[in-house]
Amino acid sequence: MHILVLGAAGMVGRKLVDRLLRDGRLGSSDITQLTLQDVVAPARPATAIPVEAVTGDVADAAMAARLVASKPDVIFHLAAIVSGEAEADFDKGYRINLDGTRHLIDAVRAIGGGYRPRIVFTSSIAVFGAPFPDRIGDEFLSAPLTSYGTQKAIGELLISDYTRKGLFDGISIRLPTICVRPGQPNKAASGFFSNIIREPLAGKEAVLPVSEDVMHWHASPRSAVGFLIHAGTMDTSIIGPRRALSMPGLAATVGEQIAALERVAGKSVTARIRREPDATIMGIVAGWPRDFVTERALKLGFTTAEKTFDDIIRIHIEDELGGKFVA
Amino acid sequence: MHILVLGAAGMVGRKLVDRLLRDGRLGSSDITQLTLQDVVAPARPATAIPVEAVTGDVADAAMAARLVASKPDVIFHLAAIVSGEAEADFDKGYRINLDGTRHLIDAVRAIGGGYRPRIVFTSSIAVFGAPFPDRIGDEFLSAPLTSYGTQKAIGELLISDYTRKGLFDGISIRLPTICVRPGQPNKAASGFFSNIIREPLAGKEAVLPVSEDVMHWHASPRSAVGFLIHAGTMDTSIIGPRRALSMPGLAATVGEQIAALERVAGKSVTARIRREPDATIMGIVAGWPRDFVTERALKLGFTTAEKTFDDIIRIHIEDELGGKFVA
Repeated sequence: MHILVLGAAGMVGRKLVDRLLRDGRLGSSDITQLTLQDVVAPARPATAIPVEAVTGDVADAAMAARLVASKPDVIFHLAAIVSGEAEADFDKGYRINLDGTRHLIDAVRAIGGGYRPRIVFTSSIAVFGAPFPDRIGDEFLSAPLTSYGTQKAIGELLISDYTRKGLFDGISIRLPTICVRPGQPNKAASGFFSNIIREPLAGKEAVLPVSEDVMHWHASPRSAVGFLIHAGTMDTSIIGPRRALSMPGLAATVGEQIAALERVAGKSVTARIRREPDATIMGIVAGWPRDFVTERALKLGFTTAEKTFDDIIRIHIEDELGGKFVA
Repeated sequence: MHILVLGAAGMVGRKLVDRLLRDGRLGSSDITQLTLQDVVAPARPATAIPVEAVTGDVADAAMAARLVASKPDVIFHLAAIVSGEAEADFDKGYRINLDGTRHLIDAVRAIGGGYRPRIVFTSSIAVFGAPFPDRIGDEFLSAPLTSYGTQKAIGELLISDYTRKGLFDGISIRLPTICVRPGQPNKAASGFFSNIIREPLAGKEAVLPVSEDVMHWHASPRSAVGFLIHAGTMDTSIIGPRRALSMPGLAATVGEQIAALERVAGKSVTARIRREPDATIMGIVAGWPRDFVTERALKLGFTTAEKTFDDIIRIHIEDELGGKFVA
């Protein structure tokens, strides 16, 4: 089985590739070839499986054609400009997040001759915009309040339509906000959800810019990879024409996050969280989904690796910190 | 006020232009210039108002730039490949219905310098696909089952996002199935809704391919023009970021349509309807919306010209048949 990963150098992309190489297979098929694309050179892992690393821009139609020319069986499309950047650079957001997706799916379609790969498109809960109900169900409208969310919602519509026409076998999965994101604190408005866990566990101070009653929808990086693998292997004949699915997750308030951190790591760790209310960030976060009912995804076999926010923290300590933290 | 109409030679386009010229104004502003575009040459009505007729394809980016170069104040975007053709010719549908819309909005954006016209985008209830509730509300998801519906749903997302970014002042209106459509019977699967009224009133036989309990969502051509005019003149500051609205209409079963025809025109007219069940058409129609709750549109002042299906028939007799029909 030949697998293509677009956006392989991103956080979720790297974790997906690690998992694929660790498993050596996707579902019941051995992986015989892995093609990794990103705008920065994706790492070429040391492995017996042939890995091709391609550096290039998905907004380049010729590159999309080149990537699919060898007919990969499964395509994970994770390449995207993130929310903040798509908002700041309107053209770039549409070029990468909309045109890039169209180039990919049109390149697949152009091959023809019965070529019909599985395409897993990573969408986001950013397709939803306020006002929404306390819990967003599977029939709630996509009314994004960012260009990023708009581009993801359009990608979902394209994936469903092309799939309906038999041009490939597509599925769009809306990832919850990933928590705990490894790496450096970033300036994304959502960054604090991870910062207030990751930094204190590393012995560093973290800033909490919102009040503790802010609720949001989370999944661990390990769960995100699990969703991708399931989307890449599941029986898609039972999905029906609505190929976009909100992924399961955990609704937690910031207060619940901090309480979980205290249970898992102790008061000395949570003491490193500094409250510094930021009206701008509070305003942005007020427009974000809080909770979901992901009935369809659960019925279709998507599961999370965590049952509680304590688990989310433990997964971070296990997967990123080698089981240790700064008490 | 300078008005641009794209798709001016279509059925609704022609009626909109007639109304604009009859009124001589849009809202409180005199019309000083009218630009009419279509792929076939739009008729140049005899009028004192300067009218420019442009023949060309909206899929041509250069033409979009040329059309907006003179900075029309209000743009009615009605240009589209219809449902059946977009389904049969995948490339053409995306080229006209998606790329054409992007060319237009990107051409407007490219002008800049504070140019921020009102853009009225005609969408359709085809953005909805089965299964849906008996009555579709304002928060129900767009999950189209045709490429046409997909392209309209994408157009709506673009109009909302570009408007949110302040690039123009856009509004998308989802038209019900127009009834009674004037002209020749066409082969669209929805054609019979109009055929069974129009043809008998003209003394001709009409074929009814579905059972009388089929319910669907209708508005007269006069109402459609009314929606466009209201969308072109209303105070958009009260709409909020969700710029796509399902238009009000009338839910009627085919049986109710026929009963109305009998009340308005008599039994000799309804006797011209021949029942000829067609399994294919019944299958297609089963996936169509039946009824709506259009709360937002009603609150925002959109109204229909008809209160009953009898009114829809009377409007046809008045507007198309000079008040007379073949008894």
